[in-house]
Amino acid sequence: MEHTDLKTKIEEYCVYIENALEKCIPEQEALPPDVYEAMRYSLLAGGKRLRPMLVLAACEAMGGKREEALPFACAIEMIHTYSLIHDDLPAMDNDDYRRGRPTNHKVYGEAMAILAGDGLLHHAMETMAAACVKAPSAERAEAMRAIAHGAGIYGMLAGQAADVALEGKSLDVKTLDYIHLNKTAAMIRGALEAGALLGGAEAETVKGFGLAGQNIGLAFQIIDDILDVTSTTEELGKPVHSDEKNQKTTYVTLFGVEEARRIAGRLSMQAVNFWKGQGESCAFLLALTEYLTDRTY
Amino acid sequence: MEHTDLKTKIEEYCVYIENALEKCIPEQEALPPDVYEAMRYSLLAGGKRLRPMLVLAACEAMGGKREEALPFACAIEMIHTYSLIHDDLPAMDNDDYRRGRPTNHKVYGEAMAILAGDGLLHHAMETMAAACVKAPSAERAEAMRAIAHGAGIYGMLAGQAADVALEGKSLDVKTLDYIHLNKTAAMIRGALEAGALLGGAEAETVKGFGLAGQNIGLAFQIIDDILDVTSTTEELGKPVHSDEKNQKTTYVTLFGVEEARRIAGRLSMQAVNFWKGQGESCAFLLALTEYLTDRTY
Repeated sequence: MEHTDLKTKIEEYCVYIENALEKCIPEQEALPPDVYEAMRYSLLAGGKRLRPMLVLAACEAMGGKREEALPFACAIEMIHTYSLIHDDLPAMDNDDYRRGRPTNHKVYGEAMAILAGDGLLHHAMETMAAACVKAPSAERAEAMRAIAHGAGIYGMLAGQAADVALEGKSLDVKTLDYIHLNKTAAMIRGALEAGALLGGAEAETVKGFGLAGQNIGLAFQIIDDILDVTSTTEELGKPVHSDEKNQKTTYVTLFGVEEARRIAGRLSMQAVNFWKGQGESCAFLLALTEYLTDRTY
Repeated sequence: MEHTDLKTKIEEYCVYIENALEKCIPEQEALPPDVYEAMRYSLLAGGKRLRPMLVLAACEAMGGKREEALPFACAIEMIHTYSLIHDDLPAMDNDDYRRGRPTNHKVYGEAMAILAGDGLLHHAMETMAAACVKAPSAERAEAMRAIAHGAGIYGMLAGQAADVALEGKSLDVKTLDYIHLNKTAAMIRGALEAGALLGGAEAETVKGFGLAGQNIGLAFQIIDDILDVTSTTEELGKPVHSDEKNQKTTYVTLFGVEEARRIAGRLSMQAVNFWKGQGESCAFLLALTEYLTDRTY
């Protein structure tokens, strides 16, 4: 896939996703507008929309319709957004900026930020449950579980908790992998599994999509660590050098920038090879994977 | 139903629920034990187990098996527990004790308490999704949605957010009803709807169960407000007079203890009449409703 085609396709997915997210949370109710406004503030703050894009693209790659996957795509972005809101809280990373704007608690206060995060997680659950009610099927139930599992206490939440529990401690690569695999990769895995399931993929293929997602997710996190060192606040839209400030062990502190890049490249290549094996239907996922890995150079 | 029979039945449900909750969250993983321990600390701290009991009892009343409803019962108790953990946080009600023990953040710190709450909500979602995967059906999907809806941004979360947003303000009865209906009653409604659905009830009956749940929930919240004034910390296992301390408008401040009791009694009676109309199968739900309302005297 040509670079311009990739860019066009990404842009097209983003517009589609933004439109859907815009309708996810009501603009206001009788009482209280605050929490809906706080939810919308973070949900509609832009971002790469990578996770929902993977849900939609995986579904389409397997021959499904993107409309079918849309509630699940919105749900995973709501979960991702909630995790950022809670992650930024004073009791956690205590970050003031996110995506170039003040963080949720800086605008709405701590109590409302906690509730806005909770609300997004609640609404992800309700949105997927409603999609399962609308057209009950084993595939939809499995897609919901894949996302819930990737996000949950054996996935993202476990990684986040380990990250918090081990803050300031020097980590070995095994522990760091545990954190990255759970905190970041599990949701990317869940996104691709869910999309493949909704597209009607066989169990074996779903597994392959999941593994590719895990490799992409790990590469993605390593690249985030690299960018934290090599980038500027303006480029990233969030504070850089935060890992150094928080004395975090990362792939960069363990292996240096160059070796970290090579490791991310190898992980990316494993995913790329899987997409190649799937043929033309996965051309976008292949190009997207390469594009995501290229952003470190 | 005789009082001793009711007590025996409640006790039996509680044992059944406690056993299941004990198995919900792993005792430990390689990394990090903290968040699982924090989740278990609050989930296994006792409590009335009212919501899961209603799920099971409603399912059985409609001719279903309690095992079928168990994952949904556990999920609703996990959601209830998460809401208490977050509610107690310093940024929210800042409570030091809950069920006679130090609150979650007092033991595990604020960051871990936020994550333990998040984890319980995550795991409620995953537990229900897994139940839907195990035996996909419209009823299970609808039960999941009923619980998600009762807990979510049009239910409990909205009530909690209004409560926080309007803290310290003097409220009229309409606003207070909005808070109570959402914060407390919506989950009780969701519990009874989910149970009825899992037991195979018709749509009209599910609606009736839901309305009964709403009346019980509102009565229950009014009674909580009354007990905050008339009870002691030892009796309740949590601090009393917290509403007065926080200058909260309640049914007691609006109507006085006696009139608040009468209103709760009327709401309870509406539910009781519905159970009576359902006949012998709802005898336990009837007796339970009367028992819950009697606790103010």
